[in-house]
Amino acid sequence: MNARYADRLARAAREAAAQGFAAVVVAPSPDLAYLTGYDPMPLERPTLLVLRPDREPTMLVPELERPLAAGSPVGGEIELVGWTDGVDPYGIVARLLPARGRLAVGDRLWSAHLIGLQAAVPDAAFAPASPVIGRLRARKDEDELAALRRAGRGADETFRQIRGMGFLGRREEEVAADLADLLVRNGHTRADFTIVASGPNSASPHHEPTGRTMLPRDAVVLDFGGELGGYYSDTTRTVVVGEAPAGFEEVYRVVQEAQEAAFRAVGPGVEAQAIDRVARAIIDDAGYGARFIHRTGHGIGLEVHEPPYMVEGNDWVLEPGTTFSIEPGVYLEGRFGVRIEDIVTVTADGGERLNRSTRELQVVD
Amino acid sequence: MNARYADRLARAAREAAAQGFAAVVVAPSPDLAYLTGYDPMPLERPTLLVLRPDREPTMLVPELERPLAAGSPVGGEIELVGWTDGVDPYGIVARLLPARGRLAVGDRLWSAHLIGLQAAVPDAAFAPASPVIGRLRARKDEDELAALRRAGRGADETFRQIRGMGFLGRREEEVAADLADLLVRNGHTRADFTIVASGPNSASPHHEPTGRTMLPRDAVVLDFGGELGGYYSDTTRTVVVGEAPAGFEEVYRVVQEAQEAAFRAVGPGVEAQAIDRVARAIIDDAGYGARFIHRTGHGIGLEVHEPPYMVEGNDWVLEPGTTFSIEPGVYLEGRFGVRIEDIVTVTADGGERLNRSTRELQVVD
Repeated sequence: MNARYADRLARAAREAAAQGFAAVVVAPSPDLAYLTGYDPMPLERPTLLVLRPDREPTMLVPELERPLAAGSPVGGEIELVGWTDGVDPYGIVARLLPARGRLAVGDRLWSAHLIGLQAAVPDAAFAPASPVIGRLRARKDEDELAALRRAGRGADETFRQIRGMGFLGRREEEVAADLADLLVRNGHTRADFTIVASGPNSASPHHEPTGRTMLPRDAVVLDFGGELGGYYSDTTRTVVVGEAPAGFEEVYRVVQEAQEAAFRAVGPGVEAQAIDRVARAIIDDAGYGARFIHRTGHGIGLEVHEPPYMVEGNDWVLEPGTTFSIEPGVYLEGRFGVRIEDIVTVTADGGERLNRSTRELQVVD
Repeated sequence: MNARYADRLARAAREAAAQGFAAVVVAPSPDLAYLTGYDPMPLERPTLLVLRPDREPTMLVPELERPLAAGSPVGGEIELVGWTDGVDPYGIVARLLPARGRLAVGDRLWSAHLIGLQAAVPDAAFAPASPVIGRLRARKDEDELAALRRAGRGADETFRQIRGMGFLGRREEEVAADLADLLVRNGHTRADFTIVASGPNSASPHHEPTGRTMLPRDAVVLDFGGELGGYYSDTTRTVVVGEAPAGFEEVYRVVQEAQEAAFRAVGPGVEAQAIDRVARAIIDDAGYGARFIHRTGHGIGLEVHEPPYMVEGNDWVLEPGTTFSIEPGVYLEGRFGVRIEDIVTVTADGGERLNRSTRELQVVD
């Protein structure tokens, strides 16, 4: 078997055993792609990889997809158990699972499938698999970091170019389309999201671009990313059209300082929640704590959002290779919002920014 | 509230009550889009619509997405309950749910969210919501049928055009790219899947296009579709390059006859499994039953695959407006496969094909 996937499968089984899981069940998802290189669409016909600490991996596959699974990087090595339309696939997978104990299931497994599994293995207790697989995925290896660095550079170049393409009098949707084009021109396979939130819309963190035309003194939040070699970029900058609106510069400085301080706090052994606390303390002290309405960051890799999350209550310990966003923001309803986001990775003694775009306030035309 | 969504929400609550469910919980998915017109990305932060037969609908939303949800077609009418990063969202949604009874959850809800709900409402029994929402969605109204007809015509025109664009000496991947382009040129918003399976690859029903170059006497299965106005197309034709391979024409006739007979069996009051049985009996009688390795069809609408499924054991009763694929196939490993697929909708007294491409064997260059 491909050595990469053999190693990941073995580490997942060991980690599951260490955490007291009797088995791990994974459906088509970034988890499955990470563990096996097999990445079909999740569908109503279950495909389920079963990992047990004491056994070889097995995968339940719809009979009509057997050739696809057999042709995947692990297809020649993992036992494939086929099922045909009209039979109960959960009864078949139950025979591959222990009858009791704690079973971990991939976070994205569809509920219809989990309910089928729960009925077929009624004495088992089911829990999300992210403490097992998410922990492996969070620790990026050199190849993964290289892909994430390329994605970061493509996003940085996109920000550099979009600044010169004009904002005043254009619609949010137009700038969003330009961002999507630029991400692809700068090496991405595809754009995944392109938030362009202008004027009062910038106070909505997940705003969808509209036909609103940008005006002088608008703040504009640009939050964009896409996929490159299977890995994602995700960066945010806030610019102003012509001139900053009243009160904007003070808020910008606070967010910039919070982002910088959180980055300086990054290092091995630090808890995820400590990163959030550092950023939040600065914004709280400036009097905007109630307007920082989201966590400070999220892991990134094969998914745009993945563990660990930089949020109060998360004692996940950062290690070299852990890669995540730092993206404090302040949102003043009806006026403007500010968010600054870079992807960073933990090094042996600190952090490395994978985005290098200037964080100084940029005035655009 | 938008009358369409008010009606759908009311019907879903009534259907849930009729089936003995105390509540229905729906996450971002085609189910949520159907019920509310709100269609954000499913993410790790739960957004959960709660329907109860005796209450007004309520939706749990991440606080940072409140402006998005409030701007959706139901945003002004449905009560939005926000939650912020760092609190337990399942505890909040539990207060909106009955403490016991049968609760239906959307089939695509992520398992990590279902496990959170199960822990927060430990005395409730959870079941998939497709018997409730899937049943509503299966009955297409006139606007939905108009969208599905447009999608079908775009797919038919795509097949007409691809036949003249050359197969011999070209790679499967090239023809797949042409199909994707043609779907968009013929009105689709985007192509969703483009199976081009040539020669022995045509015996793999869900084959992914490869660099294989097409040769004389190849059978080529073309199975493609995309989204148009929120609704999907999905059609399959099998062509031959220059001349049919040995034994192909007999198999083609059997599949063509099975497809035609299954279509003639369509009408209100017929069970889904009856459609499968009609097609399967013809293929069985011809001696190829063991090589018809999938069900006869699937519902289609806001998803490419949705209930009802044309499969043995499914006693779902077809009604006017039920729309689904009829796609029998025979797959001879190492030699060739044949599949013919049309989308059909149930009328007052029979069926209507939404695909009109010729089903006679087409020889391509």
